[in-house]
Amino acid sequence: MSGLTVALDAMGGDFGPQVTVPASVQALLQFPELKVILFGDQSAITTQLSLLNQTNHSRLRIVHCEHVIANDTRPSQALRRSQGSSMRAALEAVSEGTADACVSAGNTGALMALSRYILKQLPGVDRPALVSAIPTQNETKTWLLDLGANVSCDADTLFQFAVMGAVLAEQGHVTPPRVALLNIGEEEIKGNDLVKRCAEMLAESPDINYIGYIEGDQLYSGKADVIVCDGFVGNVSLKTSEGVANLFIGAIKGAIYGNPLKRLIARWLFSDLFNSLKQLNPDQYNGASLLGLRGIVVKSHGSADTTAFTNAIGEAVHEVKRQIPTKISDRLEEVLLERHY
Amino acid sequence: MSGLTVALDAMGGDFGPQVTVPASVQALLQFPELKVILFGDQSAITTQLSLLNQTNHSRLRIVHCEHVIANDTRPSQALRRSQGSSMRAALEAVSEGTADACVSAGNTGALMALSRYILKQLPGVDRPALVSAIPTQNETKTWLLDLGANVSCDADTLFQFAVMGAVLAEQGHVTPPRVALLNIGEEEIKGNDLVKRCAEMLAESPDINYIGYIEGDQLYSGKADVIVCDGFVGNVSLKTSEGVANLFIGAIKGAIYGNPLKRLIARWLFSDLFNSLKQLNPDQYNGASLLGLRGIVVKSHGSADTTAFTNAIGEAVHEVKRQIPTKISDRLEEVLLERHY
Repeated sequence: MSGLTVALDAMGGDFGPQVTVPASVQALLQFPELKVILFGDQSAITTQLSLLNQTNHSRLRIVHCEHVIANDTRPSQALRRSQGSSMRAALEAVSEGTADACVSAGNTGALMALSRYILKQLPGVDRPALVSAIPTQNETKTWLLDLGANVSCDADTLFQFAVMGAVLAEQGHVTPPRVALLNIGEEEIKGNDLVKRCAEMLAESPDINYIGYIEGDQLYSGKADVIVCDGFVGNVSLKTSEGVANLFIGAIKGAIYGNPLKRLIARWLFSDLFNSLKQLNPDQYNGASLLGLRGIVVKSHGSADTTAFTNAIGEAVHEVKRQIPTKISDRLEEVLLERHY
Repeated sequence: MSGLTVALDAMGGDFGPQVTVPASVQALLQFPELKVILFGDQSAITTQLSLLNQTNHSRLRIVHCEHVIANDTRPSQALRRSQGSSMRAALEAVSEGTADACVSAGNTGALMALSRYILKQLPGVDRPALVSAIPTQNETKTWLLDLGANVSCDADTLFQFAVMGAVLAEQGHVTPPRVALLNIGEEEIKGNDLVKRCAEMLAESPDINYIGYIEGDQLYSGKADVIVCDGFVGNVSLKTSEGVANLFIGAIKGAIYGNPLKRLIARWLFSDLFNSLKQLNPDQYNGASLLGLRGIVVKSHGSADTTAFTNAIGEAVHEVKRQIPTKISDRLEEVLLERHY
């Protein structure tokens, strides 16, 4: 296969082929130039394809893999026992050039570890970062990184995250992207040393449109296009957001479900509201990217449904078309040269 | 004055006496045993009292202070220039025993620094923590700390936070409080060293009902009564929550305001929903406590309105009645003795 080929770990996530196969078919419809290789259990995949009458899709092929990396496998174990797994085979397809990107809804830690092992980092990248677009109240996107791949970072790593995030935002047509550091707001306690050091580095870099600190309550304000933090803080803040969103969505659903009349009236009253809420639905933004590797790897939510997983494939297609790894590599080289001379 | 006396920094916050004075009057109505001392500009306070026809309230007195600590004053400056300020005078009233607690909506950093300077820490406390109750989906409360007083903590400090938070939760009638550490969820990246070390300490302590890690999306689940994290993470997650809540509240308001008919129908049909949403309003939970001091200090949101500031005074009253500092001191002594022998 050649052209725009995506290697899918068909077995990953909570639903495996039940979601990954219909999502592949949907993505193939959506992107006429796309080819898909499904890595996983041949018979489970074929069963799903027959249900959809797609056993002979010309742009889809299956590579049978004997095993699957479980969700509770530790990364170190995953590395040792990954041979022949659907996740590893999909990543190897990227490293060998058979595919242009890999998408998996499997074990995040294993995906990180295997991606680093098989694809390696780009020059100038200490650690790959997990990045995702989050919705904003102006209906724009903000790229938030790191989302949990790196629990402790130094200022150099955060700086690299800023550069990589900016490249991604630029390719989403935001020029020049406004880059902010996530920080806490009180004057006296304005950040820890890590954030302060990285702020200095960003302020000195002419290639980065650094706009300063941003606080948690401005995460969804659309005031920044790229927000940088360490993986611990990023993961907590993203998950906290999901928790609060679910609280609200739960309250709204509780108020209207079970009562068809209320539901009808609610739909009439709140059609705009429901549309805005849909914008805030994390599924819309499914597909976190591992940035900084010599290849494109997109991580889907484990609980993704078909639409959400299709969005993750769409993210991979977008990154292939935009040649994100090359652009990151070029930009890092420029920025780092500038810093040293 | 004797009995239950609260010293109020009448000048703090975005609105000063416009909010602190009516809130005092409201609190005096609510708590018949309460006495209030208002520290601040005599004439500004009197103006507000006359508007409310309360210039001669028997349980309220004014102590004139010449100056106010501005919101942008750095803590180090605040310490040097605090003499004669309303915030410092209110704290001194507590240290001298004229008042039982201090409430301020002023500069958080200055309040922290002055509290430590004037009141001092309890024995066994390395650093005071800022704690607040957050709402949960079961309509219980969860105490979250630290909320930004300490940007970098060691495991001992987090451990002390857990003990102090548990004492506060117990006095809110939760026995024995379930204590959790805020962490990130992926297996391989399960927390940084700090969290892991503190987890060991908590697990070994028979006095603490430690239930393990909790992720950001479970912050509002009601699964824990006390959630412990460092001040950077706590501040970001609390502010992120506010941001997301405002996004939803904004969307809901946008959908029904400006259309009186929709508003009427919405209020009639969805009164339960609006009540639940009210529960999620941060004002309901206004009043973060500085725990670990030899005295009670409650910090109100700077933007608090009268109801919210009254809630902060209520929190101070509650802590005085429950003798929180003494209980924290006793508990810390027990727990630390146990750890060392």
